[in-house]
Amino acid sequence: MAQQIADRRDVSFVLHEMMEAEKLSKTEKFAEFNKKTIDLIVSEARHLAIKEILPTQALGDEGCRFENGKVFVPESFHKIMALFKEGEWLAMADDPEYGGQGMPKLVATAAGEFFNGANPSFMLYHGMTHGAAKLVETFGTETQKGLYLKKLLSGEWGGTMLLTEPDAGSDVGALTTSAVKNEDGTYAISGAKIFISGGEHDMVENIIHPVLARIDGAPEGTRGISLFTVPKYHVNEDGTLGEFNDVVCTGIEEKLGIHGNVTASLTLGGKGNCTGTLLGKENKGMSAMFVMMNEARQFIGLQGFSIASAAYMVALNYARERVQGRDMLNPKDGPVPIIRHPDVRRQLMTMKAYVEGMRGLIYYTARCWDLAATADSDEERNRYTGLIEVLTPIVKGYITDKAFEVTNHAVQVHGGYGYIKEFPVEQLMRDCRISMIYEGTNGIQAADLLGRKLGMNDGKTFVAYMDNIRIRIEDAKEFKTLSDMAARVETAHTRTNEIALHLGKIILSDQRPLANAFACPFLEVMGDLSMAWMLLWRASVASQKLKKLVGSSDPESVRIKAEKNKDAAFYDGQIKTARFFINTILPATLGKLNAIEITDGAAVEMLDSSFGS
Amino acid sequence: MAQQIADRRDVSFVLHEMMEAEKLSKTEKFAEFNKKTIDLIVSEARHLAIKEILPTQALGDEGCRFENGKVFVPESFHKIMALFKEGEWLAMADDPEYGGQGMPKLVATAAGEFFNGANPSFMLYHGMTHGAAKLVETFGTETQKGLYLKKLLSGEWGGTMLLTEPDAGSDVGALTTSAVKNEDGTYAISGAKIFISGGEHDMVENIIHPVLARIDGAPEGTRGISLFTVPKYHVNEDGTLGEFNDVVCTGIEEKLGIHGNVTASLTLGGKGNCTGTLLGKENKGMSAMFVMMNEARQFIGLQGFSIASAAYMVALNYARERVQGRDMLNPKDGPVPIIRHPDVRRQLMTMKAYVEGMRGLIYYTARCWDLAATADSDEERNRYTGLIEVLTPIVKGYITDKAFEVTNHAVQVHGGYGYIKEFPVEQLMRDCRISMIYEGTNGIQAADLLGRKLGMNDGKTFVAYMDNIRIRIEDAKEFKTLSDMAARVETAHTRTNEIALHLGKIILSDQRPLANAFACPFLEVMGDLSMAWMLLWRASVASQKLKKLVGSSDPESVRIKAEKNKDAAFYDGQIKTARFFINTILPATLGKLNAIEITDGAAVEMLDSSFGS
Repeated sequence: MAQQIADRRDVSFVLHEMMEAEKLSKTEKFAEFNKKTIDLIVSEARHLAIKEILPTQALGDEGCRFENGKVFVPESFHKIMALFKEGEWLAMADDPEYGGQGMPKLVATAAGEFFNGANPSFMLYHGMTHGAAKLVETFGTETQKGLYLKKLLSGEWGGTMLLTEPDAGSDVGALTTSAVKNEDGTYAISGAKIFISGGEHDMVENIIHPVLARIDGAPEGTRGISLFTVPKYHVNEDGTLGEFNDVVCTGIEEKLGIHGNVTASLTLGGKGNCTGTLLGKENKGMSAMFVMMNEARQFIGLQGFSIASAAYMVALNYARERVQGRDMLNPKDGPVPIIRHPDVRRQLMTMKAYVEGMRGLIYYTARCWDLAATADSDEERNRYTGLIEVLTPIVKGYITDKAFEVTNHAVQVHGGYGYIKEFPVEQLMRDCRISMIYEGTNGIQAADLLGRKLGMNDGKTFVAYMDNIRIRIEDAKEFKTLSDMAARVETAHTRTNEIALHLGKIILSDQRPLANAFACPFLEVMGDLSMAWMLLWRASVASQKLKKLVGSSDPESVRIKAEKNKDAAFYDGQIKTARFFINTILPATLGKLNAIEITDGAAVEMLDSSFGS
Repeated sequence: MAQQIADRRDVSFVLHEMMEAEKLSKTEKFAEFNKKTIDLIVSEARHLAIKEILPTQALGDEGCRFENGKVFVPESFHKIMALFKEGEWLAMADDPEYGGQGMPKLVATAAGEFFNGANPSFMLYHGMTHGAAKLVETFGTETQKGLYLKKLLSGEWGGTMLLTEPDAGSDVGALTTSAVKNEDGTYAISGAKIFISGGEHDMVENIIHPVLARIDGAPEGTRGISLFTVPKYHVNEDGTLGEFNDVVCTGIEEKLGIHGNVTASLTLGGKGNCTGTLLGKENKGMSAMFVMMNEARQFIGLQGFSIASAAYMVALNYARERVQGRDMLNPKDGPVPIIRHPDVRRQLMTMKAYVEGMRGLIYYTARCWDLAATADSDEERNRYTGLIEVLTPIVKGYITDKAFEVTNHAVQVHGGYGYIKEFPVEQLMRDCRISMIYEGTNGIQAADLLGRKLGMNDGKTFVAYMDNIRIRIEDAKEFKTLSDMAARVETAHTRTNEIALHLGKIILSDQRPLANAFACPFLEVMGDLSMAWMLLWRASVASQKLKKLVGSSDPESVRIKAEKNKDAAFYDGQIKTARFFINTILPATLGKLNAIEITDGAAVEMLDSSFGS
């Protein structure tokens, strides 16, 4: 049976052979999670994802139905919702005190990859719920936690995030939803919010909305924004549901994709009856959001990546089965599967390189959380949280950009069949596209990397990130067969450092807009370098294993072994994938670095009228 | 009123200032088409496109309806069909003898850009009809021409191309539709064809299907394929319609986009009653197809480009109107339109550079047809047809790849609004995607460029193409302000020549598959270089005009003039756009050239099993 959603062997490779997941079980916090347990969790998640969730993906594409303020999700979602809750999959890495499973994030990420690749629309409900729960956990009073937390983390209730308004998208500070303090300390909320994922639906009996609003008299802009919890139905002290809280769904969006996940417009307090409670401190709503942002953005990175991984599997399986054309060197042998054609191989290789590079980077990020959570000292903890700061815009911005490209390749590998709904790839492409936009457009991610992360902690955080890459370059140099590759990555590393310094200077000058015109190109080269890092790391691990298996690194001996031995084929594939990326994609990165160095100002200098009449 | 579909000023620039369209009127063939006439034609086409056709674009997205073998197009298409026929727009550049307008292709292309950008689904019906007509015109007997040609070129009847079968897509030679000669010289046709654009619909009373089939006993593969005309209804000698010809629509595809254009599955002779007449010679069907292929592929290039152009206009207008965030250097001035943000400008500039480079290349290609058609000698004609041979895979393959990227940027510029159907860009992206696939996937275009066009005529055809680029580089060197840019393009030109030679050697060796793994990268660098060529050419023309307008090329004087004078703003925009492309995109092309030079074989060498378990 062909692999679906994600390559189980590669998931295992990253978990155990690269990230050494079991080492986490040496800590008290994760003592339960030995290799056997980890593998069991991933296998169970995979089983549920493939057997139950994946079949709902195409069905979910038919979309949600809106009727008289109510939203009905695709029928098939109800069954998987029950199974997902039953398996307690929503709060894998959360505190057991509130019903979480206490897993390492690394393990939860592997499970999450299968779930998100199986049906991103469905998983987005849980992603939103989880984010809302984390806000309550982090900023809530004991009362708020007591009322909402377990219900959210069990999936019994839904959660959202009410941020965007028609005139306040990327510019959150422009929002106009208002909050007026009531005598009992609660707030009367009134406003209209749009683009609310999971804002209203029939899978849960209540929805808890964290809402950004401005308290009457608060300062303008982001400094005057506060965060509130606004339940759809009030919750009584005993946990039973009270009255309707005047949160009305006024419509849902027709979208390009993720049709199974409702995007709602909500009116709060249209009849003057909407009440919320302050979550955290007055006027500190934005900083509360920022605390949660890394996690939320990494979730979107995981979402985009998981779809890309699924798309690669679909394209690979198709390329192995679809017979069309003849082998270029042996045309008389008759028609062959299209995986024999060099251009198809190039596309598959491109997809594989990005998917595996992304998997490495995403799992690595998850492990940083785990290492921060189990750190022995503040210094150690800060090291990992610093890495996470730099990783976040790359994981969200770069990975979702490239994930979309991967889905685009998957369509192309299918030829005409890629364009029709009978095959799953066009939906994967549509579903993937949103990940580049929400939770901060990728332009905003790039601005974050260049404007905040590069200079953070006097640049030391960035330097630490780059040093981590260098370590793996040094490692790879130890292997004769990898030394050329290591040298190329080293060149890219050095050049990226130079360019970071170059842009870093400009952004501190009065030419700041010029630097910002290169924020996205800078994000891209940082991402490319990070892919090379991961692929080179993979190749180092694989080289070691391969040497043990084959007893030699002579190419011919490796090939002979790999033809018979699955592991050898896998490891050899790791090395070749690194070679492909480093020798055919990374050279373009060097060109992109040169372009940033030129820092041409045409886009900034151009008159608005010169863009077109 | 903001520009829609295409920037009229830029269309005029390319037509008159770059391509000097009026010069064509010095020839006998195009004597009627002076500047005034040309502008009148383009303005009329634009008017019809904007006022009548564009409003049907979103309506068409609702798709066609299939009922009992019949297909109903979107209701709104019937009115524009009538207007389109009335204006005699289908056969703009065709022979007046058969009802064509005899226009230069260059002019027809400008008109076609507006039509295709207004509704590519609708225009695809006409593109197919036109292609069928050209087959009849080129290969038909006088009887066939008499029966079909005028009806097709007037748009009264539809035309298609029946090529693909479920197991014969890119590998046309694998087709199984059969033809058995009848006693009266006609052929009994039987088989099943899929992916037939415009294969069945209710806008015309008859459809003429050119069909690829194998005559009983003919050789296997492409050598045994013949071309037939198979009308939906037989046509009597007096032109009236006869009996139904057993061409049955068995279903239509649900697709990612171009929903307004039906994609039909057709069964021919399911009841044994389908008759066709041979078009051209027995077993020469493939070569007949190849004769038409350049034109058909250029049409798809035009389609993709026109959508990209429309997407740029939509994104530009949105960026000028959408107020969000503040100016980076002057935050106190309050919210600004997003065109003020550097990253948005970068995206708009990227779109503009590609769209204008593409417009140049497509109009240039059209002019090559006109110059070939009016050439004084075989040598001159061969020069232009040679250029067309090299241009075709670039226009089809590279342009549709980049057109899709442009639509993708248009979505991103819109943020969350880009993802919802209320805004037009997500449809443009979906509609554009097919252009990378049909009429030969872009992988096939790349193989054509590398495998056929590079070595054609002992490499002289390719050299002539490259020499044409060099001429414009030399021109640009004359302008002091362009000399740096010209030097960069020259470097890319030199490197591309080297790499072409490098790959050309490999493709003639036993490592042919290795070269083919770099066919797409080679197409990409050739396309990038062609964009740079066009943009540099534009900048040269603009520099000359600007000097006359401003009396100096001092940047500050230019800026002051451009702020008040529309033409100066336009010309300055041309120079800045060239600068942007050459200084921020072309450096990556040099990196890509380096990657091709490395010619890493990992993708080709990899075991199939190493791609994943």
